[in-house]
Amino acid sequence: MSESTIKNSTISLSRAPSVAGFASVVGRKEGEGPLRARFDEIVPDAHAGQKSWEQAESAMLRRALDLACSRSALPGGVPECLLAGDLQNQCAASAYALRDVPAPLWGLYGACSTMSESLCLGALLVGAGYFASAACATGSHFCSAERQFRYPLEYGSVRAPTAQWTVTGAGCVVLAAEGPGPYITRVTPGRVVDAGVKDLANMGAAMAPAAYDTLSSHFASTGRGPDYYDVILTGDLGRLGQEILRDLFAADGVDLGANYMDCGVLIYDLKAQDVHCGGSGCGCSASVLCGHFLRGMRDGLWRRVLFAATGALMSPTVSQQGESIPSVCHAAAIESERC
Amino acid sequence: MSESTIKNSTISLSRAPSVAGFASVVGRKEGEGPLRARFDEIVPDAHAGQKSWEQAESAMLRRALDLACSRSALPGGVPECLLAGDLQNQCAASAYALRDVPAPLWGLYGACSTMSESLCLGALLVGAGYFASAACATGSHFCSAERQFRYPLEYGSVRAPTAQWTVTGAGCVVLAAEGPGPYITRVTPGRVVDAGVKDLANMGAAMAPAAYDTLSSHFASTGRGPDYYDVILTGDLGRLGQEILRDLFAADGVDLGANYMDCGVLIYDLKAQDVHCGGSGCGCSASVLCGHFLRGMRDGLWRRVLFAATGALMSPTVSQQGESIPSVCHAAAIESERC
Repeated sequence: MSESTIKNSTISLSRAPSVAGFASVVGRKEGEGPLRARFDEIVPDAHAGQKSWEQAESAMLRRALDLACSRSALPGGVPECLLAGDLQNQCAASAYALRDVPAPLWGLYGACSTMSESLCLGALLVGAGYFASAACATGSHFCSAERQFRYPLEYGSVRAPTAQWTVTGAGCVVLAAEGPGPYITRVTPGRVVDAGVKDLANMGAAMAPAAYDTLSSHFASTGRGPDYYDVILTGDLGRLGQEILRDLFAADGVDLGANYMDCGVLIYDLKAQDVHCGGSGCGCSASVLCGHFLRGMRDGLWRRVLFAATGALMSPTVSQQGESIPSVCHAAAIESERC
Repeated sequence: MSESTIKNSTISLSRAPSVAGFASVVGRKEGEGPLRARFDEIVPDAHAGQKSWEQAESAMLRRALDLACSRSALPGGVPECLLAGDLQNQCAASAYALRDVPAPLWGLYGACSTMSESLCLGALLVGAGYFASAACATGSHFCSAERQFRYPLEYGSVRAPTAQWTVTGAGCVVLAAEGPGPYITRVTPGRVVDAGVKDLANMGAAMAPAAYDTLSSHFASTGRGPDYYDVILTGDLGRLGQEILRDLFAADGVDLGANYMDCGVLIYDLKAQDVHCGGSGCGCSASVLCGHFLRGMRDGLWRRVLFAATGALMSPTVSQQGESIPSVCHAAAIESERC
């Protein structure tokens, strides 16, 4: 199989599904950041009323789902299917969050790209008429992620300057076959890209090449340039990864422009909140999309948003065996009008 | 959300995709079992030429993909998308296996139901015309699973009588929009079912209620009874879980009959191979479907197979916190003729 055989291609949805409802729930630190006024709920502490961090992660994801469903005028209050995943081993946070929801679950794993993976797949399934509605949800939790991927929090390990801070938060988007919009109009699924980066404390560098691959494929296959969109939004490349992505496009003579932003940079005050390169985790792009950008689209601030969350697909075990970090990026065009 | 609001429903594919190619690769123990003559390749040892068990798992999954693609007459030799997942933390086995395949990856997590989840989703995506072809692949490895989910192998832990043996193996099915069949004609996605079982050494008991939920929904929504199918095939309920599923249907007055089988029971000689209740793992249903049943359909042995792999969605962390085991089952009807 040669690199050039297939380029990612973009699917245009002739019956573009509408965003019917959305919601975001975040932790205390996220609730103290620049977007504090944009989230639906801010939980007061890391346990969110539960006994463990893992259960707190589930509870927040479930709360985002319930809120989004309650705003979506769904028959019976329940979406016809669920698309969800998370960072916990065996995607346990989403499975436990959804175990008493009487709708089928398509379990996904795209690491921090899961919000856009779920949105892309949900749009394809609803757009084809298989389901009248779909809930796309994901989340993450700083404490459960740290102990699983890095060190027990009690060690108080020093963080590298390139490190990011896993967001405690969740987001959910409910899609419906018909509605007032915004609509998921285009879907560009991503392939696995491995640029050879091995530094687990530099996820931005590992994931930027995947964002470049999918976004450049999106532009090439749609004939749209970066200036078509009011916002081009990556998930959690962070400050450094964002710069690398700009550089990769600049080498092609493409300026991503002022409309390019990254959820991981937006969610915290990078200096004042001591988060080094910014936020990360499935819950980063999920809460920023559902808190800040879908609200903004509803309020008429933006009409065309290209949402491209990225995920790093390594595991601690395989990284300890010396492997580099493969990544993926899925992109969904969210537009006020069907086109 | 009440239990009765939505029942799983079955999607009938008006343009049912065809199985274009399939392949199976298994480990030595599986190659010594009753189905030894049915698999495409049997690797000689647990490392399969790699340096670690995790890498071996990736290599076997990739080999199954390459074999299946080579038999599928795909333009350029590459499917238009990939649907894959596995049991390794962060689904690393499939991500690393597929990192140089130039096609988009929909990363899935359905635990041991991943083969049927990928087949169901792949059929929906190809059936809608979004992709002309899709490769559905998964696998598992006894050694990587044991050390991740249970104990280091070096401990030599005694296994419970209800325990199952994680299959070292992989399978891949390539679907295409057109072809001579067999076809994926019906898809019944499953919801998360938690019957309260907490015994990690009794996965069959935890997963049987999910199989019951999805299969009974399939029968109710299609008007088909168990006797419609030449084979009803669960993934890895094992000997005990198989009995529980029969009992659950018997309580409804439904006899699953002699055509009901379980991949976990078929793949080993349960007594001679010291595997207690049978095989498990994503690779169990994947290799048995691709090795035994799709071959048999091609050779005219069976015309209608209902494939319903089950998955247990717990994680070791959450189980240690006292949680019960939620499960899921997705069902795909595979038939020689479109209907």
